[in-house]
Amino acid sequence: MTDQRRPSAGVARRSETSRRAVLTAAFELAAEVGYAKLSIEGIAARAGVGKQTIYRWWPSKGAVLFDAFLMFTTGEPGEEGGGESVEEAALPDTGDVEADLKTVMFATVDELNDPRYDRTMRTLSIEIAHDADLAALYAERLNRPMRELKKRRLRAAQEAGQLAADLDLDVAVDLLWSPLLVRWLHREGPLTHEYAAALVETALGGMRP
Amino acid sequence: MTDQRRPSAGVARRSETSRRAVLTAAFELAAEVGYAKLSIEGIAARAGVGKQTIYRWWPSKGAVLFDAFLMFTTGEPGEEGGGESVEEAALPDTGDVEADLKTVMFATVDELNDPRYDRTMRTLSIEIAHDADLAALYAERLNRPMRELKKRRLRAAQEAGQLAADLDLDVAVDLLWSPLLVRWLHREGPLTHEYAAALVETALGGMRP
Repeated sequence: MTDQRRPSAGVARRSETSRRAVLTAAFELAAEVGYAKLSIEGIAARAGVGKQTIYRWWPSKGAVLFDAFLMFTTGEPGEEGGGESVEEAALPDTGDVEADLKTVMFATVDELNDPRYDRTMRTLSIEIAHDADLAALYAERLNRPMRELKKRRLRAAQEAGQLAADLDLDVAVDLLWSPLLVRWLHREGPLTHEYAAALVETALGGMRP
Repeated sequence: MTDQRRPSAGVARRSETSRRAVLTAAFELAAEVGYAKLSIEGIAARAGVGKQTIYRWWPSKGAVLFDAFLMFTTGEPGEEGGGESVEEAALPDTGDVEADLKTVMFATVDELNDPRYDRTMRTLSIEIAHDADLAALYAERLNRPMRELKKRRLRAAQEAGQLAADLDLDVAVDLLWSPLLVRWLHREGPLTHEYAAALVETALGGMRP
């Protein structure tokens, strides 16, 4: 990795600093003021960059917030940075699929109960429901890779004979995670570890006697 | 029911006519223009009533839309009318819980795929996610009674020995219906009868071999 091969290393580094500043500003502002009051002007002012810098990289405030969300939830800082990407991450695998699913879902519960994440994730979730284009972006860039991680863990359990050989892993992921999302999004009841544990146990064992 | 007991029967009838006109206008406008552009003024104009008539009965446009949604989805026309209320409704009970759940969930799928309902329900769902007060109203007036209907059918199956005696019926309702809601709201994939059938079968039988 010489200067010949990366003549613009300094520029890239400065760009990455600006990019992170923009994403951090967007994430914080979404949590503080909500999506409706979030503006490119406000993000630019907090990040200390010009509006044109933002428009060069993102077509809309939804796209900025989406990337900010991706950076903060997966540690993925974008094309130019390092860090662990969604593809490199993995769900825990102790060999006990029930225990591992509970570990992961308890973490999801804790995250959704964190006011800082609640507001930003609620904002993103509302925008996805509103905006079919953002929904497609979300489905491709965040939901699909996250879903693949979950399916990879379930597939390992399937191969170990702990899950049914003909189980549809997409259906399984939905059965486990969608109830958490709905209870949180519609505030239908308290989001607790006990509830998550009951979901895991019932989904694994089934409703029949 | 004499005139002595209901001296204002004519007034009540006229009020009910206005109330239905307002709710119909709100439902139609929400589907046509979306919640952001929905206004009390617009509802009043379409319903042919004064704004004050609306403000006398509802504190906000969210509250109007909520009542409209309730009237159109449950056939419940409000305190003064007749018709089947949520409490009087029931899920089908042929004795086959799997078949009955599929019947009901296929109907939910068809409803969510109907553009007229999609837009109104999406609007309501987004408002519930935004607004904790509306979420509480929704939880109490629509979600709780609808959930009770579902639990009543599951309880009958439990008593018939078709479902586990220790099954938490709230968890069961969430496992069955929440994946439909998330797939629809976040447009994560096609909402089909096949998907609903897979949910019912997997939730009933469990993910284990």
